[in-house]
Amino acid sequence: MVSKYNAIARAHSNIAFIKYWGNKNDELRLAANSSISMNLKDLYTTTQVEWSDNISDDVLSINRKQADESARKRVSSHLQLIRDRFNVSKFATVNSINNFPMGTGIASSASSFAALTLAGVEALGESMSEKELSALARRGSGSASRSIPAGIVEWHAGDTDETSYADTFTQSSHWDLVDVIAIISKHHKRTGSSAGHTTAGTSVLQSVRVESAAKRLEDVKDAIVKKDFELFADVVEEDSNLMHAVMMTSRPPLFYWEATSLEIMKTIRDERINNRLQVCYTLDAGPNVHCICIREHAEQVISLLQDISSHIEIRTSSAGEGAHIVQSLNE
Amino acid sequence: MVSKYNAIARAHSNIAFIKYWGNKNDELRLAANSSISMNLKDLYTTTQVEWSDNISDDVLSINRKQADESARKRVSSHLQLIRDRFNVSKFATVNSINNFPMGTGIASSASSFAALTLAGVEALGESMSEKELSALARRGSGSASRSIPAGIVEWHAGDTDETSYADTFTQSSHWDLVDVIAIISKHHKRTGSSAGHTTAGTSVLQSVRVESAAKRLEDVKDAIVKKDFELFADVVEEDSNLMHAVMMTSRPPLFYWEATSLEIMKTIRDERINNRLQVCYTLDAGPNVHCICIREHAEQVISLLQDISSHIEIRTSSAGEGAHIVQSLNE
Repeated sequence: MVSKYNAIARAHSNIAFIKYWGNKNDELRLAANSSISMNLKDLYTTTQVEWSDNISDDVLSINRKQADESARKRVSSHLQLIRDRFNVSKFATVNSINNFPMGTGIASSASSFAALTLAGVEALGESMSEKELSALARRGSGSASRSIPAGIVEWHAGDTDETSYADTFTQSSHWDLVDVIAIISKHHKRTGSSAGHTTAGTSVLQSVRVESAAKRLEDVKDAIVKKDFELFADVVEEDSNLMHAVMMTSRPPLFYWEATSLEIMKTIRDERINNRLQVCYTLDAGPNVHCICIREHAEQVISLLQDISSHIEIRTSSAGEGAHIVQSLNE
Repeated sequence: MVSKYNAIARAHSNIAFIKYWGNKNDELRLAANSSISMNLKDLYTTTQVEWSDNISDDVLSINRKQADESARKRVSSHLQLIRDRFNVSKFATVNSINNFPMGTGIASSASSFAALTLAGVEALGESMSEKELSALARRGSGSASRSIPAGIVEWHAGDTDETSYADTFTQSSHWDLVDVIAIISKHHKRTGSSAGHTTAGTSVLQSVRVESAAKRLEDVKDAIVKKDFELFADVVEEDSNLMHAVMMTSRPPLFYWEATSLEIMKTIRDERINNRLQVCYTLDAGPNVHCICIREHAEQVISLLQDISSHIEIRTSSAGEGAHIVQSLNE
């Protein structure tokens, strides 16, 4: 039973088709370029926030264990934005549960900060528009802005706190895409995304990636509207390659790809070009390969991945809903 | 015994520290940017050219076998440049022998066209300056211009046929560098360099790579003069990553890296950063990883590579001489 000052929200991870990498403003997390992603129905974070006058600081547990101080501080900074906005002085106890491994390139920060934002606001009995929630979630983790709305979601980079938010580009029912995720490594990545974003500008390639992103975004949106998988695949893979090109030429260079990631990428492209399998790859800031395909081809994609290595763990997800209130942490 | 109209020349492969990728003029092979490389003493092509009035077309054998027609035509086109320049109408019998596997990213076209150029001119009893030979070799294969002079060689991109040539930046005795080459695959690569160069402009990243190359070239030259391995390593790896970033974002994308290439790259960088091994990586248009190191660390680099996989074939080479005349194909 959820009482006053207490709420539970769930938000889904998302996988970007046009990537977010680097900010115009690191503190506000104003993205250098607009991006578009699909929420992942089967990968989510459920977060309970309870505000109280009886504690003297915010408390955080993740997956039922006390979180380390750096994670607690980041969550506490985000809660401070909520306190500031609604002029409250209570602290919060936060319990957050992920149904997928963290820090592996499946964006746990996106779903976490989206769920935290919604639960935190709801627990105060306040309400905000989807647009406002998205902009607020963005302050915790850029891609969290895209985990607030449902379906396939566009984050408008904007140039102020208010104008940098995400909204639904199309409902997921429009095109039945599946993300077959090849999980290469469950080790926590060495450089987290937040730190990575701040180095984007050290690559000579970042400015060109950003300048050319608007065209790719239009192409992907076009491809989605027309359900043109060939166009979609070429642009999605190019955009992923461009982001990793920036990462690999930053100072210091960031190599998120593992040997197996590269093997999968090549196989996926080969199968599309030579065997007309409607699948393409994209990688976030981690080694896992997201193989985006039409539902009819998902089983074949899974077999392909299994043939590459028996060490690859596979998760699949269709497109999912937006952040929403739930009644229990475990439902 | 070499008779009139007959000459044998040897030229060495080279490994670029600042890469050549893409042309301002594809037909003349005027490079988009200047580059710098080291000749490889232990990897070379030896080529015999015999001009004759008794044959009706050029004949080519490679490694003592008749070459395929596409290779013969490319060599014949190059011989035509020599015929045109010296106003002769003879055809030539060409025997070319490589002491290393072709088409694996160890630039066989560089050593081949350098040796062909020198032998072809010499067999006519003509002489050309090193600069002229370098510019002429460039017409057969861009990087062949760098296999004419000795040691560490700079190719000045220039903007005309005459001003695009290479010369010695420093003799190899200045800095005792060793190239430990990890040969990942002996399969002939799918897209040869010449075809690849023509696609460079389809990547949105190429213009930035080219614009920023002059600075990297100056940094590498500086590092060589001062024997500053840290600076050298950072710039050489960045330049290799930039070229492969362009390749991977071309249309269609070119992925020359194999899974094992990536594994080696990461290991090499880790060992330099964490264990102060003076080694860095660079890859040409192929999967093989050239590990450039100081001589004192070559044995450790070889052990590292052997530990990664027993399937890696290893060749080592120090810096080598320029193209020169020899007395027999087999000496």
